[in-house]
Amino acid sequence: MSAITLSHGSGGTQTNQLINDVFFKYFSNDILNQMNDAAHLAIDFKKLAFTTDSFVVNPLFFKGGNIGKLAVCGTVNDLAVSGAKPLYLTCAFIIEEGFSMADLEIIVKTMAEEAENSGVKIVAGDTKVVEKGNVDGVYINTSGIGGIYEDVNINCANAKPGDVIIVNGTIGDHGMTIICERNNFGFEGDLSSDCASLNTLVDRMLEVYNGIHVIRDATRGGVASVLNEISDSSNVSIVLEENLLPIKEEVKGAAEMLGFDPLYIANEGKLCAFVPEAQAQQVLLAMRTHPLGRNAAIIGRVTNEIGKKVYMNTIVGGKRLVDRPSGILLPRIC
Amino acid sequence: MSAITLSHGSGGTQTNQLINDVFFKYFSNDILNQMNDAAHLAIDFKKLAFTTDSFVVNPLFFKGGNIGKLAVCGTVNDLAVSGAKPLYLTCAFIIEEGFSMADLEIIVKTMAEEAENSGVKIVAGDTKVVEKGNVDGVYINTSGIGGIYEDVNINCANAKPGDVIIVNGTIGDHGMTIICERNNFGFEGDLSSDCASLNTLVDRMLEVYNGIHVIRDATRGGVASVLNEISDSSNVSIVLEENLLPIKEEVKGAAEMLGFDPLYIANEGKLCAFVPEAQAQQVLLAMRTHPLGRNAAIIGRVTNEIGKKVYMNTIVGGKRLVDRPSGILLPRIC
Repeated sequence: MSAITLSHGSGGTQTNQLINDVFFKYFSNDILNQMNDAAHLAIDFKKLAFTTDSFVVNPLFFKGGNIGKLAVCGTVNDLAVSGAKPLYLTCAFIIEEGFSMADLEIIVKTMAEEAENSGVKIVAGDTKVVEKGNVDGVYINTSGIGGIYEDVNINCANAKPGDVIIVNGTIGDHGMTIICERNNFGFEGDLSSDCASLNTLVDRMLEVYNGIHVIRDATRGGVASVLNEISDSSNVSIVLEENLLPIKEEVKGAAEMLGFDPLYIANEGKLCAFVPEAQAQQVLLAMRTHPLGRNAAIIGRVTNEIGKKVYMNTIVGGKRLVDRPSGILLPRIC
Repeated sequence: MSAITLSHGSGGTQTNQLINDVFFKYFSNDILNQMNDAAHLAIDFKKLAFTTDSFVVNPLFFKGGNIGKLAVCGTVNDLAVSGAKPLYLTCAFIIEEGFSMADLEIIVKTMAEEAENSGVKIVAGDTKVVEKGNVDGVYINTSGIGGIYEDVNINCANAKPGDVIIVNGTIGDHGMTIICERNNFGFEGDLSSDCASLNTLVDRMLEVYNGIHVIRDATRGGVASVLNEISDSSNVSIVLEENLLPIKEEVKGAAEMLGFDPLYIANEGKLCAFVPEAQAQQVLLAMRTHPLGRNAAIIGRVTNEIGKKVYMNTIVGGKRLVDRPSGILLPRIC
């Protein structure tokens, strides 16, 4: 089976072969094919969103996806939750000498499929190859440009007392899948990453109500981390209801057994939306008509309480602080 | 001395500290400081250039620069040579557990200085930390957006017979510096990387003649690689004059001793411009008024010869093929 060699990263004949045989084979489009140092893009939006993310997930292949799917979904989602239509991605690979060409091709193929699925074009790329042992298989960076919808103002600092917090489905699926697969716990059962592009879901939400205050995807650090950031940025308190949190039984079981709290576990296809109470039901129902929002649920609300922190009313009747995560939850979750 | 830990990459409290204490300390600007998932940008150009590059250079610090300077210059240059005004960069770090915080701070400070110097803003970022041994110190990806000048049409496929090929100074400086530093050859002497942002030089060239056919920076694979790409894309032959190639004595000496050909050695502050003969002197003189073009020189021209390849008239009176590089020149040069 053929493998990546250092010469694939030297900028010469072998680099060209790799680009043509693998990257162009799947990513081919009118812009990329011009092979300029920089892609040239005509843009119909007055304002753009611009974002970047590197992906170092371990293992590279997991139930529900692989690093390539994650790399496309992650950047598409960062654009979508900022109120933008995802348009163009770049992708940059850092590949370990000896990496399987067949595995690389699967990853690239998945990226192309996910880009097609979410309506973005991959318009520029870069390939570096490093000596064996200087990277763990392959790391991928994707950067993305989106066009900001003019009548939308989604912002982390916009949460207001009275806002209802909606999540589009079960939490902790991605992180728990990675944890279990990495450790071969054997009780994975139906555990599967929720890795998905959320842009069409966000579009549906904005169609029914374009005044949504905040939307954020709950990746590293989980729902707890995102809500803490929003609480800080908007200077508000948030109160969650533990009994309303949608969590799959297998995630709950594995988390309990291993001592994790699903609120802190990464998701790759989940967002939290802050919607004024008057429009909350309407947005919730619209979300449930989308395949990625079928299990959408209200999980809490923004309050005037002093403290400007995140709290949770627990099932046993108490109230606890949901602090920002600290220390190592799990490295290389995404 | 403090060091990077896995918790700096977990998306929690320590990640926030790192972002505030190091990244925001130097990169701070009105757009970045909004801390959205995606930066929001108002764009005054109808067409954009979009590019990405990952940097894995070894060693991280070298005479004339470091990986941070390289990461900013590299992406600024990719935008500039495509006929665009570089506007915004993202930067994404993959850092090894245990990496020196002091070294990271030097790298970030250098990036901020080079961004300031080249007039771009760093508007979004990402930080991942991987376990010791899974990356070699730090790798950096930068992606960039530029606004394409409307009256300019620079393109790899635009080279025409009769075009004069101009380089803005001595070739092989960056690659030879890295080779010698990596191997501690001890004869580095005045060897220093040419790493520099070329956008103000390109602006000066376009001011005197905005009809320049092709501009490309000659990075991985050196001048030979870039000229082969242009020869292919434009379907023309190119003839270089060996006696006109500007090469520093120390680069020539080290290259001879180690068996390298400076034509194939990477540059990080050099471009090749293809200019119609009638405007060539004018562009050349303008380049020489810029600090990064003082040693600008005509090195060859585009011809009608059959073959559609790159040739060189040698000093001893022969003519040889300058082929596309093949195999491993040197890994991790940028």
